[in-house]
Amino acid sequence: MQTSFIHPDFLLHNDTARTLYHEEAAGLPIIDYHCHLNPQLIATDHRFATITELWLGGDHYKWRALRANGVDERFITGDADDWEKFRHWAATVPYTMRNPLYHWTHLELKTAFGIDTLLCEETARTIYDTCNEMLQSPEYSARGLMQRYHVESVCTTDDPADDLQAHRLIRESGFGIKVMPAWRPDKLMNIKDPAAYQAYILRLGQAAGMEIRTFDQLWQAVEGRMDAFAQAGCRLSDHGVDHITSRMATPEELETLFCRTLAGQVPTPQEADAFRMGMLLCLTRLNARKGWTQQIHFGPLRNTNTRMMRRLGPDTGYDSMGGWDAAEGLALLLDRLDADDLLAPTILYNINPADNDLVATMAGNFQQGPKPGKIQFGSGWWFNDQREGIERQLNSLSAHGLLSRFVGMLTDSRSFLSYPRHEYFRRVLCNLLGNDVETGLLPASQLTHIRQMVRDICYYNARNYFQF
Amino acid sequence: MQTSFIHPDFLLHNDTARTLYHEEAAGLPIIDYHCHLNPQLIATDHRFATITELWLGGDHYKWRALRANGVDERFITGDADDWEKFRHWAATVPYTMRNPLYHWTHLELKTAFGIDTLLCEETARTIYDTCNEMLQSPEYSARGLMQRYHVESVCTTDDPADDLQAHRLIRESGFGIKVMPAWRPDKLMNIKDPAAYQAYILRLGQAAGMEIRTFDQLWQAVEGRMDAFAQAGCRLSDHGVDHITSRMATPEELETLFCRTLAGQVPTPQEADAFRMGMLLCLTRLNARKGWTQQIHFGPLRNTNTRMMRRLGPDTGYDSMGGWDAAEGLALLLDRLDADDLLAPTILYNINPADNDLVATMAGNFQQGPKPGKIQFGSGWWFNDQREGIERQLNSLSAHGLLSRFVGMLTDSRSFLSYPRHEYFRRVLCNLLGNDVETGLLPASQLTHIRQMVRDICYYNARNYFQF
Amino acid sequence: MQTSFIHPDFLLHNDTARTLYHEEAAGLPIIDYHCHLNPQLIATDHRFATITELWLGGDHYKWRALRANGVDERFITGDADDWEKFRHWAATVPYTMRNPLYHWTHLELKTAFGIDTLLCEETARTIYDTCNEMLQSPEYSARGLMQRYHVESVCTTDDPADDLQAHRLIRESGFGIKVMPAWRPDKLMNIKDPAAYQAYILRLGQAAGMEIRTFDQLWQAVEGRMDAFAQAGCRLSDHGVDHITSRMATPEELETLFCRTLAGQVPTPQEADAFRMGMLLCLTRLNARKGWTQQIHFGPLRNTNTRMMRRLGPDTGYDSMGGWDAAEGLALLLDRLDADDLLAPTILYNINPADNDLVATMAGNFQQGPKPGKIQFGSGWWFNDQREGIERQLNSLSAHGLLSRFVGMLTDSRSFLSYPRHEYFRRVLCNLLGNDVETGLLPASQLTHIRQMVRDICYYNARNYFQF
Repeated sequence: MQTSFIHPDFLLHNDTARTLYHEEAAGLPIIDYHCHLNPQLIATDHRFATITELWLGGDHYKWRALRANGVDERFITGDADDWEKFRHWAATVPYTMRNPLYHWTHLELKTAFGIDTLLCEETARTIYDTCNEMLQSPEYSARGLMQRYHVESVCTTDDPADDLQAHRLIRESGFGIKVMPAWRPDKLMNIKDPAAYQAYILRLGQAAGMEIRTFDQLWQAVEGRMDAFAQAGCRLSDHGVDHITSRMATPEELETLFCRTLAGQVPTPQEADAFRMGMLLCLTRLNARKGWTQQIHFGPLRNTNTRMMRRLGPDTGYDSMGGWDAAEGLALLLDRLDADDLLAPTILYNINPADNDLVATMAGNFQQGPKPGKIQFGSGWWFNDQREGIERQLNSLSAHGLLSRFVGMLTDSRSFLSYPRHEYFRRVLCNLLGNDVETGLLPASQLTHIRQMVRDICYYNARNYFQF
Repeated sequence: MQTSFIHPDFLLHNDTARTLYHEEAAGLPIIDYHCHLNPQLIATDHRFATITELWLGGDHYKWRALRANGVDERFITGDADDWEKFRHWAATVPYTMRNPLYHWTHLELKTAFGIDTLLCEETARTIYDTCNEMLQSPEYSARGLMQRYHVESVCTTDDPADDLQAHRLIRESGFGIKVMPAWRPDKLMNIKDPAAYQAYILRLGQAAGMEIRTFDQLWQAVEGRMDAFAQAGCRLSDHGVDHITSRMATPEELETLFCRTLAGQVPTPQEADAFRMGMLLCLTRLNARKGWTQQIHFGPLRNTNTRMMRRLGPDTGYDSMGGWDAAEGLALLLDRLDADDLLAPTILYNINPADNDLVATMAGNFQQGPKPGKIQFGSGWWFNDQREGIERQLNSLSAHGLLSRFVGMLTDSRSFLSYPRHEYFRRVLCNLLGNDVETGLLPASQLTHIRQMVRDICYYNARNYFQF
Repeated sequence: MQTSFIHPDFLLHNDTARTLYHEEAAGLPIIDYHCHLNPQLIATDHRFATITELWLGGDHYKWRALRANGVDERFITGDADDWEKFRHWAATVPYTMRNPLYHWTHLELKTAFGIDTLLCEETARTIYDTCNEMLQSPEYSARGLMQRYHVESVCTTDDPADDLQAHRLIRESGFGIKVMPAWRPDKLMNIKDPAAYQAYILRLGQAAGMEIRTFDQLWQAVEGRMDAFAQAGCRLSDHGVDHITSRMATPEELETLFCRTLAGQVPTPQEADAFRMGMLLCLTRLNARKGWTQQIHFGPLRNTNTRMMRRLGPDTGYDSMGGWDAAEGLALLLDRLDADDLLAPTILYNINPADNDLVATMAGNFQQGPKPGKIQFGSGWWFNDQREGIERQLNSLSAHGLLSRFVGMLTDSRSFLSYPRHEYFRRVLCNLLGNDVETGLLPASQLTHIRQMVRDICYYNARNYFQF
């Protein structure tokens, strides 16, 4: 009889699963190859004033749950104080049952603070005070939390115009965990708002130490920044695209659109789409030249709520899944790269799980030795990083590709408390494999191999794939 | 050992599920907030001549099954007599195993007539005679059946041009169950056939007691009818749209298209689409002004079979799922409403379950206090109201929103025998929750809370949400 | 305790499933109504030099797995010798765990060669030698293998320009298994490459013994070839379409486009799409006139990898799932046929499982007596013919149609070793039904009927439906 909700065998529903998890997965370090941690907080080894800052500061998952529960925005992103915000979150938690937040919340309380009590309005004050007290201790600093969770390496997500100063400071500090920047040049692709584009190009030029007035100069600046990123340890890029289309601007059209945008001319939606795809092709070619791995995150419908966009800005919980057909555009992009032998190892992430099988089969079109699993169908992204989403991704990948070659989980998170997502993933993975063994879908005689498979997916595949 | 197919623990596969269902869900009244009952039959407290009339009269689910089983149309919608039609249905029933009809059929036989015998060709005559005899008794009248199933309130689906006379009669009769009209102005949005549109506008004007010659007069008439509906107890609207697009006619374009249609001019498909979306925006703004809740049912591909459309008309079993991408159009519609603070509490129903996650996440973009669950991802609609469809909707909603705030099931039915769909839903819900508890996905220590969750989803959330 | 991986109760997880499979499904003959076997190999009763030839010669499923595992193309489709290729495949097999290849591989080794040893690098040599030795014996010829698997009848897939000589030889040889051609006129629909189209029309004319210079002559030739196919035993057509659109060229436009293509003019993509759909309408009308059954396979995105297309040609493992919306186009096509009473019995196969429910409901729009299950939602195709894909298709069909009337499985394979896919399907089917019985979703009292259902889906429905 388990007395805690988050007990050692949480999510592990059969003996083989328990063996695989406890004897293989649990002890492995974490390679968190994609996240949105603020490197500044690592550089300064930030201390968190309250659990509210750590938990609710930038977590739009929780914000959406609070809004769905009818909580006033003042207690979500407004000027209410930390305790009031925490109390409203605590009161909402019981209403999140069956939502991943219910699991994550208690998994984080347990693994970070050793708290077994379930969070709700009645337990809020005690948990708040306990956490806040523990947060005063050095082991709960930004770095302390990373060490607590046995993190080996981390890639943040950085803009080309970023000066990478925080990354330099981290390296110079001799921090034992490898923290690398990742190259995310999305702003280069989006010309919908010429004024914003101009301002960005100016910032980029400053970062590159040059003026950008021509399309050629743009690429000089980009390559300069890629060199700087590489020197700061970058080995990985990331590209976020909403609608992957098969209209792709030619180099000449790109140059024309670039100049027109700098001159302040608003493009048509079709031109903006074609520009984005054309730039994506250029940028991904450079990834291959640089020897980097690339990620493509596609499909979200962003900033749907104009009223709240004006009030809070982007990434505040008003994005959802798009329904665009990405198949032809994705095939065209990958084919153009492959044809020139400039297809870098690539991880594809779709936001809409209805596309899982499509993406899993697309990856298979561009596999090529000698790198095993060169094209990866990425782990359940954003709305899909709950148990069912993780299982669906694992099942689609299994059906259409080689699960054995999968590079596994990442947090994709802004929070230093999200590392238990790796534990969560590992439990789900071990449970699936264990269930397969116990129902005869995998041969029990091959447990040694299956143990290796667990170790590979949880750690060694990522290590070999990324070569950080 | 259970001896009946429909036994007390049907669909309940674990102890917690059985506890939740029998102790919480089973006894709750039914709020059937969306159905297609003919209010005339309630007004007159209709007696059904035969089980064929009650069961096969307008049920296109059964008609489709009969056709798929190779039965001649004469025995489905043709001139065969009631016994012949019933006999063919009975012979088809064993072929519906694994289709929801197999469950519904036996659940209805059991709960309405106490019949445990499985329906097939051999048992047809006895069951036919037994049911028909029972139907002669007053407790099997339209009202009797509603009372039998512990119905508390019902919303029918009514056209703005309807005189609501039946609803008046029901109210005046002092019937203990609250029967309300719901506002379904779909015909106002569809200008593809100008002659039909003209005829409809004429009917609407007659209902509103005025002439409609201008676009302004149209809205005067609409608001007049909304007042009449409100006086008849209406608190809820419903909007059926096939393709939700992001092309939306402006007020000026709407007026032009309206006038051109009244002048007999056939619109282009693009104009008809833009008109429909523009009108939907206008109509949904009025819902907010009126303080009503609104439903949007979108995505079906209707009337695909021209031959049978000519012979039998619409809604006769020739509709299926569309594959349109509704994401951008839906976001645009909800955003336009939200921006003007005219977004009524809204229930979104998609026909294609491939869109479940998209819709569940879309709902999250427009949640806003103080109303919990203001935007609802509606219960599995039409082709999705079977066990798997219900489970999928519950799982998507759980993953992306707050199941706890869900307003639950509705029959969407033309039949007085469909109330067991609520029982069916409740069993499925309790089974899911019970399974989660027994596998440790939900904490067993929180059973009190989970019991409340069951009561809320089955009854109290709808009561609070609709405030009928 | 089962000692073999592929043991008698493989995939059968409950008693009822085991009863249904062993007592009903296992012993039934195979009607393989759609495959890609080379009839020449049956005509000559081909002997296979090695297991590599038999297994790896044309199997792009295995090729994709090898590439995903990082194997050099030389050992896949290149000039490496048979043993080297086999060795690389063997080394890849353990990495295919959870992919259907892992099951198929061992199911084929067990049922064809009696081998229980799991294939991997260490066991490769022994298994290679054992298989090759057995392949020398007459019972392992092409015909021997078909007899071993209790095949009753087979439809190959043949081009209208094919001379059907192999089919004639097979018939004249008195081979006990019925081998029929199936009509696959895809090349007639594709005018994107005028030179290829011209060459094809020339070949077709030669096969038909006439010159084709006009559109009328084209149809004379087509009908001549249909007669020849019918005389060779053909009862079934097959149509492969990537994007099913609702733009359909009129007869006049078809003629114009045909003439322009023969004159070497390249069509626009829109013209090519409209031509394809218009020709599909013409060709499917002829199927009805001929009294044939028709199949429509739609949705794949083919030949995505230009580099490998140039090197290896089509059908070499570079296809994936498309994301097109087929609903309106499919409805239009079926409606046009139905309206003229020229809708042949039709099997619809979608490549993207996100469309399963859409297709299952579409089939229901055109059902018509007296033929039960006239429009079939076909068995999980291509990327969907694994356990999960098979279950999903069975569940969608069950929810939206009549599983009882399903014509069941086919291999769709180029290999004489693929017949165990029928066994695989039967086990999955029996497991689902058995599970339903044991959980009370189907009544245990109806086991006699359920046994008949199993026999029907595995054999008798196909026999009655196709009337080969």
